[in-house]
Amino acid sequence: MLVIGELINGMYQNVKSAIQAKDKAGIQKLAKDQVGQGAGVLDVNTGPASANPEDTMKWLVEAIQEVVDVSLALDSTKANVIEAGLKLAKKPAIINSTSADKGKLDVLLALAKKYNSGIIGLTMDKKGIPRDRTQRTEHALAIVSAAQEAGIDLSNVYIDPIVLPVNVAQQQAIELLESLREFKLLSDPAPKTVVGLSNASQGTEHRPLINRVYLVMAIANGLDAAIMDPLDKELVDAMITAELILNKHIYCDSFLDAYRKK
Amino acid sequence: MLVIGELINGMYQNVKSAIQAKDKAGIQKLAKDQVGQGAGVLDVNTGPASANPEDTMKWLVEAIQEVVDVSLALDSTKANVIEAGLKLAKKPAIINSTSADKGKLDVLLALAKKYNSGIIGLTMDKKGIPRDRTQRTEHALAIVSAAQEAGIDLSNVYIDPIVLPVNVAQQQAIELLESLREFKLLSDPAPKTVVGLSNASQGTEHRPLINRVYLVMAIANGLDAAIMDPLDKELVDAMITAELILNKHIYCDSFLDAYRKK
Repeated sequence: MLVIGELINGMYQNVKSAIQAKDKAGIQKLAKDQVGQGAGVLDVNTGPASANPEDTMKWLVEAIQEVVDVSLALDSTKANVIEAGLKLAKKPAIINSTSADKGKLDVLLALAKKYNSGIIGLTMDKKGIPRDRTQRTEHALAIVSAAQEAGIDLSNVYIDPIVLPVNVAQQQAIELLESLREFKLLSDPAPKTVVGLSNASQGTEHRPLINRVYLVMAIANGLDAAIMDPLDKELVDAMITAELILNKHIYCDSFLDAYRKK
Repeated sequence: MLVIGELINGMYQNVKSAIQAKDKAGIQKLAKDQVGQGAGVLDVNTGPASANPEDTMKWLVEAIQEVVDVSLALDSTKANVIEAGLKLAKKPAIINSTSADKGKLDVLLALAKKYNSGIIGLTMDKKGIPRDRTQRTEHALAIVSAAQEAGIDLSNVYIDPIVLPVNVAQQQAIELLESLREFKLLSDPAPKTVVGLSNASQGTEHRPLINRVYLVMAIANGLDAAIMDPLDKELVDAMITAELILNKHIYCDSFLDAYRKK
């Protein structure tokens, strides 16, 4: 399981304030804390309020790369903002994200090819979010096919079936969980799968519990990566244990500590 | 999800002592506590040390039925001990268990038919425990076929793929989890599925965590019932949340309390 740390996002008040105050140390602490707790990639999102998102992306990427040596998931709806990050990224990054719309796919897959980066493909298009597993898989197939045509290695393509909050779209979770299995049948090698986990519990009580159980259920269905909060210790404990049960790392009595020390 | 409370088992020292001392109140407290925390069925096992297991089974069943009104899972390797319980059971019971051995199946399915009870079928035979999902499914098919021939309603048949401890049989968990899906394809209507959960963590550190994550993964694969500890609040919280995510009960902010008050 690849943990993509979600905490550097201008949507959050502390990050928004740090961006506005050019508080590099504040961003760097978030980067170090997340990597210290097992994030293999850090998501970087300027937030919706940024006046000049390209400059903000550059500033964030440079600040983060001064203190940690991990890949970045460059998270924006705008290709120019993503490319501003790609130009500075020291390691192959992950583009977060394209949809299944052809126009968007063409632009972002070209960037992925040019910068040898991974790419997250959301199973949605202009018509909106998916209604069921079939629609998710249709969008996933469009993304996989376009990636193949663009000459992208499918091990660099992460299909995101779009987690919706259980309090407003409760019937969608089973559709999402089963779609994770369907995506693996689309190609050989199969694309990877990723979820934006925290959205599952948006607006609910018991957010950590819902996140934890949702993640374990997704791992049982073959999930490869999650955009999540690596500082939630119980969440990470659950993830490590799910991977233990799936025989991804060897049992020892101190398997939680052993995993974290890797 | 059907919770089968596991705590009345002579294998446990407190139950063994209560049986020896004829401490009816001790057994009855265990029965009330488990039902109070959501057990829909109570497992009843005399334990291996019982001098006269038929009499012990009768005493246990009578003691339990004085204080709670739930079905009992009569748990013994001996058909005569199970039948001693069946004769006294006020509600249709569950026979726990048969294997896939023809001789055993014939005897126990005949009891299930005679007493209109459910039956748990372990996916093993004289040659021992299963090595992989294929062997589990082969045994499951033998049990399902025999149940059909015996005229047993398949909604009363619970296939148990035999949970093994993750510390000694780590490669078996994924086989078990996937077999839960395969069992559902064996017949229409499909048989139900059940696991003896606590065995997953036998001999390990972090037992509650492993049990919790294992249960959630099994529920993600369609599990119908578990023999488990209903007094483990975090385990039950995880189970309720997994069922919420699968849309089995409707979201409300107090969904944990709401489920427990049902």
